[in-house]
Amino acid sequence: MRNLLVAQSGGPTAAINATVAGVVSCAVLSGKVDHIYGAVNGIEGVLAEKFLDLGKKLDSAEKISLLMQTPAAALGSCRYKLGDPEENKEDFEEILQIFRRHEIRYFIYIGGNDSMDTVDKMSKYCKENGVDDVFVVGAPKTIDNDLVETDHCPGFGSAAKYLAATFAELERDCHVYEKKAVTIVEVMGRNAGWLTAASALSRVNGGEGPSLIYLCEPVFDTEQFLKDVQEKLEQKDSVLVAISEGIHDSEGRYVSEQVQSDAQDQFGHSYIAGSAKVLEELVRDRIGCKVRSIELNLMQRCAAHLASATDLEESRMLGMKACQCALEKQGGQMASIRRISADPYRVEYTSVPVSEVANKEKKVPLSWITEDGHDVTEEMMAYLRPLILGEPAMQYENGIPVHIELY
Amino acid sequence: MRNLLVAQSGGPTAAINATVAGVVSCAVLSGKVDHIYGAVNGIEGVLAEKFLDLGKKLDSAEKISLLMQTPAAALGSCRYKLGDPEENKEDFEEILQIFRRHEIRYFIYIGGNDSMDTVDKMSKYCKENGVDDVFVVGAPKTIDNDLVETDHCPGFGSAAKYLAATFAELERDCHVYEKKAVTIVEVMGRNAGWLTAASALSRVNGGEGPSLIYLCEPVFDTEQFLKDVQEKLEQKDSVLVAISEGIHDSEGRYVSEQVQSDAQDQFGHSYIAGSAKVLEELVRDRIGCKVRSIELNLMQRCAAHLASATDLEESRMLGMKACQCALEKQGGQMASIRRISADPYRVEYTSVPVSEVANKEKKVPLSWITEDGHDVTEEMMAYLRPLILGEPAMQYENGIPVHIELY
Repeated sequence: MRNLLVAQSGGPTAAINATVAGVVSCAVLSGKVDHIYGAVNGIEGVLAEKFLDLGKKLDSAEKISLLMQTPAAALGSCRYKLGDPEENKEDFEEILQIFRRHEIRYFIYIGGNDSMDTVDKMSKYCKENGVDDVFVVGAPKTIDNDLVETDHCPGFGSAAKYLAATFAELERDCHVYEKKAVTIVEVMGRNAGWLTAASALSRVNGGEGPSLIYLCEPVFDTEQFLKDVQEKLEQKDSVLVAISEGIHDSEGRYVSEQVQSDAQDQFGHSYIAGSAKVLEELVRDRIGCKVRSIELNLMQRCAAHLASATDLEESRMLGMKACQCALEKQGGQMASIRRISADPYRVEYTSVPVSEVANKEKKVPLSWITEDGHDVTEEMMAYLRPLILGEPAMQYENGIPVHIELY
Repeated sequence: MRNLLVAQSGGPTAAINATVAGVVSCAVLSGKVDHIYGAVNGIEGVLAEKFLDLGKKLDSAEKISLLMQTPAAALGSCRYKLGDPEENKEDFEEILQIFRRHEIRYFIYIGGNDSMDTVDKMSKYCKENGVDDVFVVGAPKTIDNDLVETDHCPGFGSAAKYLAATFAELERDCHVYEKKAVTIVEVMGRNAGWLTAASALSRVNGGEGPSLIYLCEPVFDTEQFLKDVQEKLEQKDSVLVAISEGIHDSEGRYVSEQVQSDAQDQFGHSYIAGSAKVLEELVRDRIGCKVRSIELNLMQRCAAHLASATDLEESRMLGMKACQCALEKQGGQMASIRRISADPYRVEYTSVPVSEVANKEKKVPLSWITEDGHDVTEEMMAYLRPLILGEPAMQYENGIPVHIELY
């Protein structure tokens, strides 16, 4: 038997299930796969042998289409990262035994930086231990858009579309009153400002969008921020501000670390929340006008009802590409998008060594931030614009989109 | 000349512009109106004579259709409430002089409780002072759904649809990990829990929706809340909780007042924010599991991209009804919805004396809350279900919905 296993990992996105759909379609079409399994809860589910018969669960075009419009990892997720095989090879041996038992030859792991590290370690372990009949391939996903070696990441386009539409709506909401007011909106992104940059897409139809946009790449200067806000308040009543959650001072301290530093997540990132809230208090104290803060929170990664058709299509194609790599015995690769033309927008699907991707982060180039530090350049806009295009035909029932449940 | 003036007031909604569209359509159709004006920024704009020629601004079906899909008050809004005419008649005299100057005979004011007070006072002032050629009529709007004498309020259905879809998406997002976690989502509604109840609509297609729902009508007991959460955590990994921003103790103190009481808004409501945040800290301290809080904030009132077709249609019809009342010289009325059949859902448009509506609040009947205090009954669900039905055909450009700008 030649079976295939697919699993999802890391933070959910609105497009991560489209990649599963792509894997399944490619495996079915190939005629080379006997069973298509899905592991529930990522690599943890692999270790626990929590397998679903995905081929059966997704045996109709309608189910595939529902999967495409279902947000968050339909196979569940995990934050578990495999250790160093040189120090502890137990997990790797355990996984290979499970693969043997279920006759799994192809394993597609969909995820971000940390998940690509898992793909890399497993591939290397196979190679170094003479396992030549198991092929582990990565498929990228992350709303943060911070993976290297791919033009952009599946999931980012839909999050960007949510941000574009939401900032356009917020801008209309905020300017109905004549009173001077500041609205500070916090966007996800600890170390890369791509999502915050996407707030500028709210201007694509002529709307004003945010008056000020602060990405997390440059140093954030609170005094300069107050000056910028004050200047804008002189020009207009309603000042809408977009900030990355990860804005920080010259010593790398998050703006929000003044108030919160008590928690650390499992990968050692310090826990941050409330940069917008901290700035709200600052504006209230120092400027004294009406001010509110908004955190877009999980909605920006799970708003599948506002998914980008471009993103869903690309995510699906990347799932197909990853499956193709595995079937062609190219373990240790990650499916990737290469932009071959900007206007008209054209991409091709390729693959790159996952070792080049794992544990790296693609930040926004400083040259894509305007000189005044509080907006993005036309180069950034040209990069972003195609990613949010198109609205998928969504199936609604009883007033809300239909989701599929796999387990 | 017989001119008509329309204005918008209070907090924006996703459907308030549909009511303007209805007023304009009815006025055009009637053949009885020479000019249709819009006042910018509500009654403040009337006093400042900030008038737009709405007939010209909306002279095509395409523009009307864009207006229908534009969120937030396209004519701007205000929070200004006219004083007591017995104590200060200056504003009323001023307004009547302005009406004379612009030959305005019909004035439609779209808003909530406070705006209906303005309609009531103006109508009474006209009557008591022998002004028999000016007709002031109210059209309801509020996402809070707290106006009396109407089955429900325009704007509520779209906010409810946003909440239903968003809770369904959040529920999927929150359950991807195996770890025990609590997510507390704060929904708008200081005094009425209708919006929070709408979170239960996330279950209409079989999804689990929130595990616990706390409206602001009953007394909120934090110890009972902790017990409820703990009980749910024993049954499942991910516990999603919906709470009204206005949950309060037996003395009427908002849960959030422990941390914030420094601000008062103009109408004397005490400023509240962060009930969910307060409960988040409580769960962290007392239960110790992973917990996060989410405020849905302005998005729930301005997410026009997810508007309910039923709501938009009804909002428009109410605008037409209000205009009809004015043209038929029925000043002092408010257009209203009467539900004449539950299943199939059928309504009729009628009008009620605005004096019956002004300054009153319709709360959720306690009998529509389950006995355990943390969910809603089937009666509530039957009331809510029809209000979110239907998806309007939205015009997108460059990846986001198109909005119209009137000023």
